[in-house]
Amino acid sequence: MPKIIVEVMPKADLLDPQGKAVANALHRAGNKDIAAVRIGKRIELHFEREIKDADIEKARQLGASFLSNDVIEDVVNVHVEN
Amino acid sequence: MPKIIVEVMPKADLLDPQGKAVANALHRAGNKDIAAVRIGKRIELHFEREIKDADIEKARQLGASFLSNDVIEDVVNVHVEN
Repeated sequence: MPKIIVEVMPKADLLDPQGKAVANALHRAGNKDIAAVRIGKRIELHFEREIKDADIEKARQLGASFLSNDVIEDVVNVHVEN
Repeated sequence: MPKIIVEVMPKADLLDPQGKAVANALHRAGNKDIAAVRIGKRIELHFEREIKDADIEKARQLGASFLSNDVIEDVVNVHVEN
């Protein structure tokens, strides 16, 4: 099924407590080379038809307005997977 | 900063109530062409040095064992971003 993937991350200058907790746990488990962890969202929009350029443009708009909170999050990527 | 991105999604045969809620809201807002929505995680592992093949292999293992719950989730992608 064709999908548009919208990837949303917490803004770089904001704390990400969930990511910090995972980073601490990875360190305790010996993974000292992982300097930091940040956790965002991967949102799949499924279509039952072929995806057109207009759909990607619409997904970009929805990503910025509806699927993310632009006070605390950035849309880092919008792409199609078939 | 070099990063390994680990993408985790709820398994296809499981309900995803958060995705379902977003799909319903998108439909109410007129986006009838989006048949379904599923929401997973995008986990960034940050490194302060170059990423080697062994790091990617390790990230794959951590993705399967530590960063996801394999009863309900699948790791759908592991890749490097510089």
